[in-house]
Amino acid sequence: MQPIQQKFSVPFQYTVHFTNGLFKLDNPLFKSIFSQDVNAAIRKLLFVIDSEVAKYHPSLIKEIFTYTQQHTDTFKLAAEPIVMPGGEACKNDYALVEQLQQAVNDYGIDRHSYIVAIGGGALLDMVGFAAAVSHRGIRLIRIPTTVLSQNDSGVGVKNSINAFHKKNFLGTFAPPFAVLNDFDFLLTLDDRDWRAGISEAVKVALIKDVNFWQFLRKNAKALAARDMPAMQVLIHRCAQMHMDHIAGGDPFEMGSSRPLDFGHWSAHKLEQLSEYSIRHGEAVAMGIALDCTYSYFTGLLSKDELDEILETLEEIGFSLFSEYWLTKDSNQTLTVIKGLSEFREHLGGKLTIMLLSKIGKGVEVNQVDPELVKKSIYFLQEYSLKVKV
Amino acid sequence: MQPIQQKFSVPFQYTVHFTNGLFKLDNPLFKSIFSQDVNAAIRKLLFVIDSEVAKYHPSLIKEIFTYTQQHTDTFKLAAEPIVMPGGEACKNDYALVEQLQQAVNDYGIDRHSYIVAIGGGALLDMVGFAAAVSHRGIRLIRIPTTVLSQNDSGVGVKNSINAFHKKNFLGTFAPPFAVLNDFDFLLTLDDRDWRAGISEAVKVALIKDVNFWQFLRKNAKALAARDMPAMQVLIHRCAQMHMDHIAGGDPFEMGSSRPLDFGHWSAHKLEQLSEYSIRHGEAVAMGIALDCTYSYFTGLLSKDELDEILETLEEIGFSLFSEYWLTKDSNQTLTVIKGLSEFREHLGGKLTIMLLSKIGKGVEVNQVDPELVKKSIYFLQEYSLKVKV
Repeated sequence: MQPIQQKFSVPFQYTVHFTNGLFKLDNPLFKSIFSQDVNAAIRKLLFVIDSEVAKYHPSLIKEIFTYTQQHTDTFKLAAEPIVMPGGEACKNDYALVEQLQQAVNDYGIDRHSYIVAIGGGALLDMVGFAAAVSHRGIRLIRIPTTVLSQNDSGVGVKNSINAFHKKNFLGTFAPPFAVLNDFDFLLTLDDRDWRAGISEAVKVALIKDVNFWQFLRKNAKALAARDMPAMQVLIHRCAQMHMDHIAGGDPFEMGSSRPLDFGHWSAHKLEQLSEYSIRHGEAVAMGIALDCTYSYFTGLLSKDELDEILETLEEIGFSLFSEYWLTKDSNQTLTVIKGLSEFREHLGGKLTIMLLSKIGKGVEVNQVDPELVKKSIYFLQEYSLKVKV
Repeated sequence: MQPIQQKFSVPFQYTVHFTNGLFKLDNPLFKSIFSQDVNAAIRKLLFVIDSEVAKYHPSLIKEIFTYTQQHTDTFKLAAEPIVMPGGEACKNDYALVEQLQQAVNDYGIDRHSYIVAIGGGALLDMVGFAAAVSHRGIRLIRIPTTVLSQNDSGVGVKNSINAFHKKNFLGTFAPPFAVLNDFDFLLTLDDRDWRAGISEAVKVALIKDVNFWQFLRKNAKALAARDMPAMQVLIHRCAQMHMDHIAGGDPFEMGSSRPLDFGHWSAHKLEQLSEYSIRHGEAVAMGIALDCTYSYFTGLLSKDELDEILETLEEIGFSLFSEYWLTKDSNQTLTVIKGLSEFREHLGGKLTIMLLSKIGKGVEVNQVDPELVKKSIYFLQEYSLKVKV
């Protein structure tokens, strides 16, 4: 009997908006995003809020109530907003996913309702996962509250939680219904979180866009000093590049190539070795420094460009070296080297690592020399000591 | 700041193959499906087998070992095949999902490895869910072993498990890598499972294809007598129609319309009321009888066509009535009527039910008259008694 060929494409679209004071009564943005949903019924919304956000924005929940009461023709709250812990720890706690699924059941949240998640990247990942698997996908509105989530993780198509001590072991690809970046949330970030998100911008600039790099280089000190206009430009540009990459390539990552993982193979390992005391963005900055140094040692990148990159990272306020990089396993091998084989396994057998041939131009390689990685680490250790002196 | 619009399409393709003796050494099909995966490495396979299938096909696991050993240039077993209970009960047991995720972790199954699931629709749903959320989607090869899974659930794009006493509460849309329908598995089905799967073919024929209906009508008794050539035609045609529907419409069901749910709103409720002693396909046959009778009472369908449909269902061997339909709630309302509001909630507020205007032509309506549903149920009760006499 003849085989039957199946072939189709699934179209996805969503918009990332930028605003201030999202739930102020005179801000029409939140209400306006529902105009694309032609379903006539009153939409049911379930808000889930990162407890850190709720703490630093004590009037937020009240604002949401007031805003919702003003627009009962468009939507209603399915229940009181749920406040949950965010940060990487929330991705290790499956009970939170179950609590959300219980809420989906209890409050009759269906495929035409909306879960509105307000928080950092970790909370958005965890809530996104719970939403994506409930009723095979409840619509998700993401309101990212950190630099990292506004310019990178929160504007993309992935969600995840951790399992078996592995980051993002469980997850799906699930484009959001909409993303609402409210810059006001950045005002209450501590300096580490403000800074950490900048590394993803450095990453895309280095591998793809020399003009963006020039902007970052010029504004490095302003960014470190929490200059908001510079940060807004950075977030918009970085989000745009991230989204262009997703749309232009392989949105659900069915192939092997992962160019946006520049600087990430070692960063993941570093986060783990530090038991997540090093934030993702901080680890990525160190991972970028490592991969740039490695690019220099293999002869791909010039010394001048390496210096320019490391100097800029320092100006933004990033550490370029961590003692965790010197952690050794029982064979006296640097543990971080193991990150290479874990990354290879994650990719599916064939290693593909992005390096730099010049600023603004990434190149993929399929082999990495562990000895040169080691040399790069010791180089950065020395470089860091020198800077500090 | 300007909003950023995201827009992309994700292409999916897979093939449903038909064969006999899939793991006989001289059958090249299983090996051949990997030729589309250009990854040079040896593929890792993790088999998961429905315990009922393993029981009725005691040489299956050995055949898999032998077949794999013959093709070590193409793939290897990541571990011994995992045997698990199937049937609806497996979808209520989250521990099975966790066991599979543990195996994914333990055996280093990555996004370029394959999980090969052999079993009935319930097992395929459960394994499919575990695969879809591990590493954001491990490739899944489905080998459906029942009529229902070969012609319907196993060739589509969904997976699921049950939660909060609700069928398919958790799940995703995840097209398989390939589907391999081996007719030999049908030989060991009991009569109920052989028959149950026929109802999905009746369903698509009635709402979409009068020629297919003529085939079913002509072969009703042969199908009841386990005529394999007739069943093969039925499965191929039904699978094709199901796949065409997915590709031609809304594969990930982002809209509200669910035409293939003809006969299903009451069937889901009936399964639940019977505590799943009534199989899905059996409930669908009764649900079809109900919706056709309802179509007749609303004046949509002629009496001749209703008689033809009910007679054919009887010839195939389906019961048209169950005592569970008379179950009443505390207000003395037929509980099955509640299925309507549950179905409406599932669809997201707006009820859309498929009825028949003639054989081969479904029509969607947005209102259902509970009194006429009741009348239809009592009609079928009487009809069934008459037939039995």
